[in-house]
Amino acid sequence: MLTLDTHLQLVLDLVGVFAFALSGGLVAVRKRLDLFGVLVLAAAAALGGGVIRDVLIGRVPPVGVSDWRLLSCALAAGLVTFFFHPGVERIGRFVRVLDAAGLAVFAIGGSLTSLGEGMDGVTSVLVGVVTAIGGGMIRDVLAGQVPEVLRREMYALPALLGSTLVVLAHHYDVINPVVVWGCVLLVFAVRIIAVVLDLNAPKPLRTGANP
Amino acid sequence: MLTLDTHLQLVLDLVGVFAFALSGGLVAVRKRLDLFGVLVLAAAAALGGGVIRDVLIGRVPPVGVSDWRLLSCALAAGLVTFFFHPGVERIGRFVRVLDAAGLAVFAIGGSLTSLGEGMDGVTSVLVGVVTAIGGGMIRDVLAGQVPEVLRREMYALPALLGSTLVVLAHHYDVINPVVVWGCVLLVFAVRIIAVVLDLNAPKPLRTGANP
Amino acid sequence: MLTLDTHLQLVLDLVGVFAFALSGGLVAVRKRLDLFGVLVLAAAAALGGGVIRDVLIGRVPPVGVSDWRLLSCALAAGLVTFFFHPGVERIGRFVRVLDAAGLAVFAIGGSLTSLGEGMDGVTSVLVGVVTAIGGGMIRDVLAGQVPEVLRREMYALPALLGSTLVVLAHHYDVINPVVVWGCVLLVFAVRIIAVVLDLNAPKPLRTGANP
Repeated sequence: MLTLDTHLQLVLDLVGVFAFALSGGLVAVRKRLDLFGVLVLAAAAALGGGVIRDVLIGRVPPVGVSDWRLLSCALAAGLVTFFFHPGVERIGRFVRVLDAAGLAVFAIGGSLTSLGEGMDGVTSVLVGVVTAIGGGMIRDVLAGQVPEVLRREMYALPALLGSTLVVLAHHYDVINPVVVWGCVLLVFAVRIIAVVLDLNAPKPLRTGANP
Repeated sequence: MLTLDTHLQLVLDLVGVFAFALSGGLVAVRKRLDLFGVLVLAAAAALGGGVIRDVLIGRVPPVGVSDWRLLSCALAAGLVTFFFHPGVERIGRFVRVLDAAGLAVFAIGGSLTSLGEGMDGVTSVLVGVVTAIGGGMIRDVLAGQVPEVLRREMYALPALLGSTLVVLAHHYDVINPVVVWGCVLLVFAVRIIAVVLDLNAPKPLRTGANP
Repeated sequence: MLTLDTHLQLVLDLVGVFAFALSGGLVAVRKRLDLFGVLVLAAAAALGGGVIRDVLIGRVPPVGVSDWRLLSCALAAGLVTFFFHPGVERIGRFVRVLDAAGLAVFAIGGSLTSLGEGMDGVTSVLVGVVTAIGGGMIRDVLAGQVPEVLRREMYALPALLGSTLVVLAHHYDVINPVVVWGCVLLVFAVRIIAVVLDLNAPKPLRTGANP
């Protein structure tokens, strides 16, 4: 099988879900949503990417609505944010590290899931990226803001890089746990570097016609 | 079968679709959308929850795009809103009662549909809630506003309560028409009480850090 | 088979994808999104309608995430917009002609795809319209604006007209390449006329109660 070690992957999935759910909860708190809004945005951020992934590859019901462990983890993070949001804001740096781990696990895991369902390479790269960034996009659309990933920060690029590498490894039949974990670590490292150096994707040039 | 009496359920479904479509049409009129926008928002509010439900549980094509009765009902409500919106606003209280009935039927009906397709309990609770609130969320996102259900009013809670009860009844094998109708009435009653007493879900505490 | 000539259809699909992707890229540039945002909005506008179509009729993975030709074409248009957006704005009239062609091909092609998968008439009309306007709606929601198609311009009506005619032709068993191409041309012509005459769908009447 192409999957990561099952037990370890669950742990990492839960880390990713928790981190993404914190981000969803924080956006909801900043937008002054109510308790239900905080829980929905936490769940949407944490599970939305996986739901899109599963709908695209025809795996229903999506794991995001059927696995109570992921769902409970997302709702727990939502409750934590609701009650302790000043504290969560204060450890923002730590949350970003968790978030980078989530990005890495979701991108590589998404591509592997897609390959495992027999999807081809192009599809699997895309599915990996969508798994990693889809939840955050749903979170932002529901919160009434243009998705952050489209505006600033190098967030999607590490996911694209990692998903491409893992799909290539699969294509050339050199996939094994070391390669997979290497890809996960690479995504994590690139994302952390982008955060530390405050790297941003380039913007289109301004022109007189586009003030 | 776990479904409600078919004929009665169709009548109730149509009531729910009509009420939700009125809400979609009113939001569109307030946002100054054109005729097509009013019809799309009416259809999205009325049928969107069911479409998400069916996509999540793998029932394609979703009933919202294949059943001409539901679709016609939604479009008719859209036309009514387009031409007579001041009148519809004026009977706002009556529309809210219809809307509460829609919420109840969609939540319980959504969970029963999910159970009927062999989904497990956690999934079916979620699917019921999503069926009930999904249409309104799509309506608001398309209209450029943060979904109302995330901001205020006790709207999702009755749906969650009813879906949980009907799933529990199914789990303990005590499901029958009386129980199902009891759940529908309970959701309706709780929602009406929330409207009358103007109950809202709690908001996160403000802090100095979140002005 | 009900499809258009395969080779010709691919060419037209690519024209439509390219035109829709330019529209997505331009919206992203105007909203000052970064390079990744421009590429995502280009891809969403160009491929989003087809992805919704395929999810609704159960054809997974959707062609928008599995066909590298469509995807490459969308990303190429996104890059063109990113680097040469003042030029793309300047040939806006030509882009609108391409866009009308895209609308026509997507609407008729969407309905034919749906009929080909065994969907009934009502579903196939809706699926055709959703294929044609879905991408633009996703583009606008991601860019934080109310979808243009809901606010102004006669954009969806030609699609609805063409999809209805092609579904009727299929129903009365008089479908053949001439009829199909006639429908495509009709949609194209109606849309161009609407653009030239600046036709708009009617708006709801203002009232004192809705200032």
